[in-house]
Amino acid sequence: MTFSVTILGSNSALPTSTRYPSAQILNVSERFFLIDCGEGTQMQLRKYRIKFARINHIFISHLHGDHCFGLIGLISTLGLLGRKVDLHIYAHKDLEELLGPHLEYFCADLPYEIIFHHLDFKNQKVIYEDKRVVVESFPLIHRVPTCGFLFREKEKEPNIRKDAIIRYNLSIRDIVSIKQGNDFVEEGGNKIPVEQLTVASPRARSYAYCSDTRYCRRILPIINEVDLLYHEATFTHELKKLATQTSHTTARQAATLARDANVGKLLLGHFSNRYKKLDDFIVESSDVFNNTVLVKDGDTFHVANQESK
Amino acid sequence: MTFSVTILGSNSALPTSTRYPSAQILNVSERFFLIDCGEGTQMQLRKYRIKFARINHIFISHLHGDHCFGLIGLISTLGLLGRKVDLHIYAHKDLEELLGPHLEYFCADLPYEIIFHHLDFKNQKVIYEDKRVVVESFPLIHRVPTCGFLFREKEKEPNIRKDAIIRYNLSIRDIVSIKQGNDFVEEGGNKIPVEQLTVASPRARSYAYCSDTRYCRRILPIINEVDLLYHEATFTHELKKLATQTSHTTARQAATLARDANVGKLLLGHFSNRYKKLDDFIVESSDVFNNTVLVKDGDTFHVANQESK
Repeated sequence: MTFSVTILGSNSALPTSTRYPSAQILNVSERFFLIDCGEGTQMQLRKYRIKFARINHIFISHLHGDHCFGLIGLISTLGLLGRKVDLHIYAHKDLEELLGPHLEYFCADLPYEIIFHHLDFKNQKVIYEDKRVVVESFPLIHRVPTCGFLFREKEKEPNIRKDAIIRYNLSIRDIVSIKQGNDFVEEGGNKIPVEQLTVASPRARSYAYCSDTRYCRRILPIINEVDLLYHEATFTHELKKLATQTSHTTARQAATLARDANVGKLLLGHFSNRYKKLDDFIVESSDVFNNTVLVKDGDTFHVANQESK
Repeated sequence: MTFSVTILGSNSALPTSTRYPSAQILNVSERFFLIDCGEGTQMQLRKYRIKFARINHIFISHLHGDHCFGLIGLISTLGLLGRKVDLHIYAHKDLEELLGPHLEYFCADLPYEIIFHHLDFKNQKVIYEDKRVVVESFPLIHRVPTCGFLFREKEKEPNIRKDAIIRYNLSIRDIVSIKQGNDFVEEGGNKIPVEQLTVASPRARSYAYCSDTRYCRRILPIINEVDLLYHEATFTHELKKLATQTSHTTARQAATLARDANVGKLLLGHFSNRYKKLDDFIVESSDVFNNTVLVKDGDTFHVANQESK
């Protein structure tokens, strides 16, 4: 079962030919979640061979162009490809109003429905849920209303050992009870501990996306112990003042959050194009939190399907 | 003096990772004219190292998304780069209305002015003119109002030979008269023919852009003898019926126009993505008009600065 994130765009507002504006795709057991949709996202999806049809949910963190200018092109292309399935877009309410006339003019014959979900920029909120995954939005601090997104696999019940079913002749009712964590009591009164009857299910994995935002420690409980944390690092710490002024984060600040939230791995992106080399980002981040990666367009990061501790 | 066109996007509505939607840049003596602006144009400009600041005029043939979805991103980036100079956009009048709310929302602090020029889709018209170049729009036949564009260098006066100025002691008045094509008469009455006194100036070069359009023979006098003709060829001739239905052109039809207009070179693009290989396009086009090229993103085609015939 896959749990991976692929970077489609890793730059800040001014894209280059190798670093496109913000967009990522999260694959949770072949459910594809598109996070932000900067210009060129549809071409990057083609480049990295991600199947368009698998995307049913798009999450837009905020309405700056480098996070959403690719939407209209992608929506149009999905129409030309004959999509029939609803497309859900989670974004600031203004997006629906802004896109409306463009959809009418450029995508009049769209063969599928777009369903807009308006984000709450004040409270942490569950915005999507299915059998396998829960998605929450949470407020960040930027120049315009901005949300981060937290993707968590659901905790699964332990599996019953096949040999135990035979050995103790377990009924469906017994199995339900054991899955709920109860020991099994044989007819003679002999108690078999639940641990002997079950195999732990794979650990629920998690991913948090935080872009764009000022250094914001109040997100620590939300991102606590996620396997992967993507955090913007527009500047190095030398430009801390500019970072604060423009409501962005430095690499060192992002690493501090990763360390204090005890995350598995930190992915840094959204670099300002004033930097010709990114060496300083990795140096100052790794100094605080060792397991840091500077992402590039096309990178994919997997979280292994390990058993629970 | 340069006269060249660089292909930024060569595909039709569904872009791939190597063929972006329609966009081209025409360089006439370092004046850069952007023709159409599909999604990703700004990244292609970076990739092919074309200086953004040199673009002052953008021509949008028609309002289908694959010809204009890159505009808002480019406009925004030009603002972030600190542009101060007016940007002129020549397009259908609806574009101004459609872009308005997006410019207000996403580009509120734009440090330069955008000046919209509304195209006439009924008549051939001069839409831009300076010392060196004239740009005309002319109607094509597509599912929505569509214009082609004709770029022509202005005819230059012949240059006076330096040795003639000394030999005949020519005055400014004499020079003006000779440049107008008059012979020079010496004081004694001896007549020196204008041909002996002048060097022909370089030939005025020309480029015509025709996309998207149904096969349309009435453009023949407009594109007559242009050095370079870019013409859409969405389909091969096998799908002639579909081409007509969707108001597109086949490769053979485009080649027929090139032959009958006696153009220098034919550039074909805007290929439907139903074709995995483009061999048939070149075969059927070359059969009618030999000097045909199937363009790729990144190709540049130069017209040499030859003297007039």
